[in-house]
Amino acid sequence: MASDETMSDGEQYFEGVEKLLEIWFSVSSDSKEKNPDLRKIPRSKLESLLKIVRCEIISFVKNDQIDAYVLSESSMFISKRRFILKTCGTTTPLLCLEPLLLIAEQFGFTEVENLFYSRKNYKRPDLQLPPHQHFDQEVELLDALFPDGAAYCLGALNRDCWYLYTLNPIPEPNRPRNLMASDGDQTLEILMTDLNPDIMSIFTKEECLNGKEATKKAGIDKIIPNMIIDDFLFEPCGYSMNGVSKNNSYETEDGCYMTIHITPEQDFSYVSFETNVPANHYQEIIGKVLDTFMPGKFTVTVFSNHDSSTREQVKDLLCLKQINNKWNRRDVQQIDFKNYDLIYAFYIKFPS
Amino acid sequence: MASDETMSDGEQYFEGVEKLLEIWFSVSSDSKEKNPDLRKIPRSKLESLLKIVRCEIISFVKNDQIDAYVLSESSMFISKRRFILKTCGTTTPLLCLEPLLLIAEQFGFTEVENLFYSRKNYKRPDLQLPPHQHFDQEVELLDALFPDGAAYCLGALNRDCWYLYTLNPIPEPNRPRNLMASDGDQTLEILMTDLNPDIMSIFTKEECLNGKEATKKAGIDKIIPNMIIDDFLFEPCGYSMNGVSKNNSYETEDGCYMTIHITPEQDFSYVSFETNVPANHYQEIIGKVLDTFMPGKFTVTVFSNHDSSTREQVKDLLCLKQINNKWNRRDVQQIDFKNYDLIYAFYIKFPS
Repeated sequence: MASDETMSDGEQYFEGVEKLLEIWFSVSSDSKEKNPDLRKIPRSKLESLLKIVRCEIISFVKNDQIDAYVLSESSMFISKRRFILKTCGTTTPLLCLEPLLLIAEQFGFTEVENLFYSRKNYKRPDLQLPPHQHFDQEVELLDALFPDGAAYCLGALNRDCWYLYTLNPIPEPNRPRNLMASDGDQTLEILMTDLNPDIMSIFTKEECLNGKEATKKAGIDKIIPNMIIDDFLFEPCGYSMNGVSKNNSYETEDGCYMTIHITPEQDFSYVSFETNVPANHYQEIIGKVLDTFMPGKFTVTVFSNHDSSTREQVKDLLCLKQINNKWNRRDVQQIDFKNYDLIYAFYIKFPS
Repeated sequence: MASDETMSDGEQYFEGVEKLLEIWFSVSSDSKEKNPDLRKIPRSKLESLLKIVRCEIISFVKNDQIDAYVLSESSMFISKRRFILKTCGTTTPLLCLEPLLLIAEQFGFTEVENLFYSRKNYKRPDLQLPPHQHFDQEVELLDALFPDGAAYCLGALNRDCWYLYTLNPIPEPNRPRNLMASDGDQTLEILMTDLNPDIMSIFTKEECLNGKEATKKAGIDKIIPNMIIDDFLFEPCGYSMNGVSKNNSYETEDGCYMTIHITPEQDFSYVSFETNVPANHYQEIIGKVLDTFMPGKFTVTVFSNHDSSTREQVKDLLCLKQINNKWNRRDVQQIDFKNYDLIYAFYIKFPS
């Protein structure tokens, strides 16, 4: 998404692959702040943080649980105690982490309950800025902040893979539980490359006037119903959308969202889809997303915590060797963390 | 195992962590050789290969299925069509891979059916020789030989982890099956660090005269019964043993083995255990191994192919959050390959 960048040799390239940071905050037992809420952080402070990341806010919607921002490079979602920042291109989200933790502390959140930093392998790592040029660099920065941090690579290191940094503390039976109740939580992400050029042409100013037209034409509004959609079509091409649920039918305190970002250029086409909506059958959502974009390759990741209503059903994904008679699985992996189970799979269109 | 090396600054260090190479060969459909057997490779050719690896043969036993060699740095097992080379210290086993493939071809094996190259993270990667200084280097060498190769890292990249390179081709429905029948196959490996010093002292010339005495004193002969044991105690310390089954009760063409290697020095103690014996309950073998050596930390890996009799039972390991009320699981991961399932887990002694 966003318009592409011009290299010094005149070559056009844009890195669609996002860096995704999700942090769950909590309060310590001796905290004075009784009702902390990340949404109380003023806009000016958010804008300062995003300056460090090298992007800015271009649109905003909200519901009772979530403030959802479309950024010049992807999206930001802020709930009571959950902060999500997803940025593509050559942005530097990890550089805002320390200032973000300080601001959160000022607003009553003294503890990081959990953190997830993840991204697919870049197509052009050489174009990234420090500390995002290599996963080892990113891990070094995170290790300096989190003594319980653990870094993983899922999928084949020498092909398509997906990096994750999260907190994985050794169980301490006597440690007092923090004051915030645990919510059922799950996240489905589909990261697609080598997409159908006819579909990608929808996401250009040549074919559509604005985000709304592109959303309708591509059928994006049909993937998950009942969403307040905030969509944006970039000049000359590129697309972003955030969706927040119209009614909080899922009854989670931090709310449900979906987000899609599209880099349509044929040489480096990329689409990401993400949602935390609980679903009995993720196969159905995955199938809809794939038929909407027709990728040549994609990764699927599903996180589900121990209170998630989808925790058992998502294991069906482990058996999914083929999807819609079009995509064959090449890799499948599973990790069980202290609070979360994770499934990773990588598929290639047949015949590849 | 082997005696430790002296660094330029007078410091003593020995890298117990082994590089493990396992190759399954097969013949192409147009092959003229009707009964190929890797054991027909003459000793002089094996010695030349091991010279490239920087180690040598120091002992030998065999049964009807396996030739088992104790090396100056760990072990080599040669069966009809399976070649296993496990070497520690600063050996360079990947450098013998190309010559090995050529020799195998001369002896009728024109195809590599499967390959597994694996190792734990080194304690001192800076002391290794190319191409073994970094997993990326090793992958580069392997990628040049195997178009279907895929590289993985299991466990936390920034802590204890385990690297694997294997063949993971895209399923091709029309490809003719090779001529060799598929055997049930499984491998259990336990890689232990921070071991009990009292137990480690058994594996020194101060406390034991020879390998046989150390084997008995530590109870190694009781871990898997009915094995022909070839054990060796190094000067001044260090221990290696190979076991091959007395009677081929498991009826696999390529035979059953076990192998243990011990670096007893307290500053860098390391013990590895490996076997391909099928077992209904690997928990029992794992428990015996742990009680024999009492590690502070260890990784467990279990491979089982689709014809393995243990394939379903090994999934019990996924539920094993604690072992013998002494070790807590920190990491658990699962990968399903085309022909093999893999479980990886990492445990720490409690309280750590």
